[in-house]
Amino acid sequence: MEITVSRKAHFNAAHRLHVPEWSDEKNKSFFGSCNNPNFHGHNYDLIVSLTGEIDPITGYFIDMKWLSQIIKEEIEDRFDHKNLNLDCEEFKQLNPSTENLAVVIWQLLNKRLNHPKNLKVILYETERNFVEYNGN
Amino acid sequence: MEITVSRKAHFNAAHRLHVPEWSDEKNKSFFGSCNNPNFHGHNYDLIVSLTGEIDPITGYFIDMKWLSQIIKEEIEDRFDHKNLNLDCEEFKQLNPSTENLAVVIWQLLNKRLNHPKNLKVILYETERNFVEYNGN
Amino acid sequence: MEITVSRKAHFNAAHRLHVPEWSDEKNKSFFGSCNNPNFHGHNYDLIVSLTGEIDPITGYFIDMKWLSQIIKEEIEDRFDHKNLNLDCEEFKQLNPSTENLAVVIWQLLNKRLNHPKNLKVILYETERNFVEYNGN
Amino acid sequence: MEITVSRKAHFNAAHRLHVPEWSDEKNKSFFGSCNNPNFHGHNYDLIVSLTGEIDPITGYFIDMKWLSQIIKEEIEDRFDHKNLNLDCEEFKQLNPSTENLAVVIWQLLNKRLNHPKNLKVILYETERNFVEYNGN
Amino acid sequence: MEITVSRKAHFNAAHRLHVPEWSDEKNKSFFGSCNNPNFHGHNYDLIVSLTGEIDPITGYFIDMKWLSQIIKEEIEDRFDHKNLNLDCEEFKQLNPSTENLAVVIWQLLNKRLNHPKNLKVILYETERNFVEYNGN
Amino acid sequence: MEITVSRKAHFNAAHRLHVPEWSDEKNKSFFGSCNNPNFHGHNYDLIVSLTGEIDPITGYFIDMKWLSQIIKEEIEDRFDHKNLNLDCEEFKQLNPSTENLAVVIWQLLNKRLNHPKNLKVILYETERNFVEYNGN
Repeated sequence: MEITVSRKAHFNAAHRLHVPEWSDEKNKSFFGSCNNPNFHGHNYDLIVSLTGEIDPITGYFIDMKWLSQIIKEEIEDRFDHKNLNLDCEEFKQLNPSTENLAVVIWQLLNKRLNHPKNLKVILYETERNFVEYNGN
Repeated sequence: MEITVSRKAHFNAAHRLHVPEWSDEKNKSFFGSCNNPNFHGHNYDLIVSLTGEIDPITGYFIDMKWLSQIIKEEIEDRFDHKNLNLDCEEFKQLNPSTENLAVVIWQLLNKRLNHPKNLKVILYETERNFVEYNGN
Repeated sequence: MEITVSRKAHFNAAHRLHVPEWSDEKNKSFFGSCNNPNFHGHNYDLIVSLTGEIDPITGYFIDMKWLSQIIKEEIEDRFDHKNLNLDCEEFKQLNPSTENLAVVIWQLLNKRLNHPKNLKVILYETERNFVEYNGN
Repeated sequence: MEITVSRKAHFNAAHRLHVPEWSDEKNKSFFGSCNNPNFHGHNYDLIVSLTGEIDPITGYFIDMKWLSQIIKEEIEDRFDHKNLNLDCEEFKQLNPSTENLAVVIWQLLNKRLNHPKNLKVILYETERNFVEYNGN
Repeated sequence: MEITVSRKAHFNAAHRLHVPEWSDEKNKSFFGSCNNPNFHGHNYDLIVSLTGEIDPITGYFIDMKWLSQIIKEEIEDRFDHKNLNLDCEEFKQLNPSTENLAVVIWQLLNKRLNHPKNLKVILYETERNFVEYNGN
Repeated sequence: MEITVSRKAHFNAAHRLHVPEWSDEKNKSFFGSCNNPNFHGHNYDLIVSLTGEIDPITGYFIDMKWLSQIIKEEIEDRFDHKNLNLDCEEFKQLNPSTENLAVVIWQLLNKRLNHPKNLKVILYETERNFVEYNGN
């Protein structure tokens, strides 16, 4: 019996959307207020989902407290109260759009969880904008 | 890398569930209070999701402000503060159930977005009742 | 020891904002899309709060199931799946604005609850617009 | 046209996670505070989803009030205000983890709904921990 | 300039409503399913509010992390994953109704915070039932 | 009949908590990760409440669309997608704590609304931390 378990987490960060190869005008025109050179920020909400078999002894697929700890170590400790552009290696060369941030989070968790089956992340930049990535 | 982006919108409308070929008794028995001839109404919440590749330059799949504008023009301007049965061409011949409203919204967006891959809509009639349609 | 207990309820209704003494132009200009002659509608959320002493035997101030039943009889049965303008005596002469609806709900509950101390109602027309009335 | 309709429900229950074949130490070490012999409890939120064709006459796939009644009879009446370990036959031999509870709910609904296509349940133990099961 | 700061917390617990001086019949009739001798449970949400002056140097009234730590030590560590009736001294002689639980939480925080001005707690037993107490 | 109407708004901003008169060590020790020199950010939610008499003709106390426009002009246009420390005159000399931001928002609205009775703002920095200010 395959089941999907999900855990919600959150972190607060600053970022700026910017393509260094483009002129300031093109950046401002394309990204609008998200291009503010002084940054803006968000409360990001994150849902991490994993699929697998229920252990017939324990009734667990995975221990939620363990998953919660992995998310803390790999994602919250790395991105919470940070400036994604200035403080985070992952975005030195990569624009910290919600799409890219979701992919980076998926890759960090996938590596740490040792390439699990059906890892999926949903990342809310605001309550109204969100992105889903499952490694495909 | 394929990613799914979602945008939330909302609109407030009146409607009545009614099958004109049926007697008043059958309508009232089948649809209950939703058949009230004087209408009732809802705050509809809508989630629109699209799947595609991330642009390697911008880090965007699509611009959320553009998607938000399309939803405004095609859905909110058409249905917000309207009576679905009386004001909207789409429901002159079609019962404005949540199911039919979700399909109509999908069709309007699909046409405007030029038949995108994996367009999906989730329509909440209330917090406890919702419908999902993806064109299949 | 005085404590305030609150109970949340909801109902779905259609309405139209309109002043019969005004011209159609003035109504449309003042109330905008809320003046649509064919009505629109909302999922109303209601919070009813009462203040009083805790009974030292039961640890209750009031029985929530009883309060829930009163709200059902006086408010939900009266307004749910109704057209406030056409179906409800209370709004034959009164514009069903959120403000007036909150006052009417307070009066109906106040009468039924036999003039309790500190009755308060909060009425949400949408998640972003709400009104509070406490009888003063 | 295939559509998925969903209905949200909830129930409040006590439970304890425990493997009778294990020592008290192993249980406490594995399940932590969830192993408290005196139980703890949750407000469970449940989303039940079904997929099928829209009826061209009524615009309904299924009647939400009927689905709501089935969920009440099969799930809420069985588990609400109960101790899952002590009061419920389903968990006499089965550890009431969120995973197992989701599977049991799916099985109860599947049997009652006569093996529908694409029945899915999502069970929230808390706002931050949830499980999805679709019978595969 | 006086300001009110609020911090949200939560804990999960089992309880049973019961008056030992009453017969089983009277208890069952009065408390209904909340009288289940095997207990049931809830995810309690708690909002703690304090009022005071803003420090002109720091711009803080109080440090939210400190308030969060006090709530953890006094409330979450005491009640989370507990059976209020069996595990908690506070309810050996007191029925663990939401009203009484709110008063006990207020008293525990008031003592620890050294009788602050305008301490208020709001305790949600469910999303639809909640109680407010401010020491008056 | 006096009634309180409330309107919810939101904006996304970056900020840093810092007292320039203090050493870096003291700032880091006092404000923790909120002192990050590269900033972090939040999705701020704002509730603005006003109290007054219902107009007997219109059933309005104030027009919500007008209030919404005032909040947009005075608050959202000023703070949305901004760095509070670097972009906003209000915080050149003032630490942008949630407390100070709530007071500044109240003052901006109070001035624009021409000193209304019972203006109150509630500002959520996160879902779990919020501040209320009413001018007293």
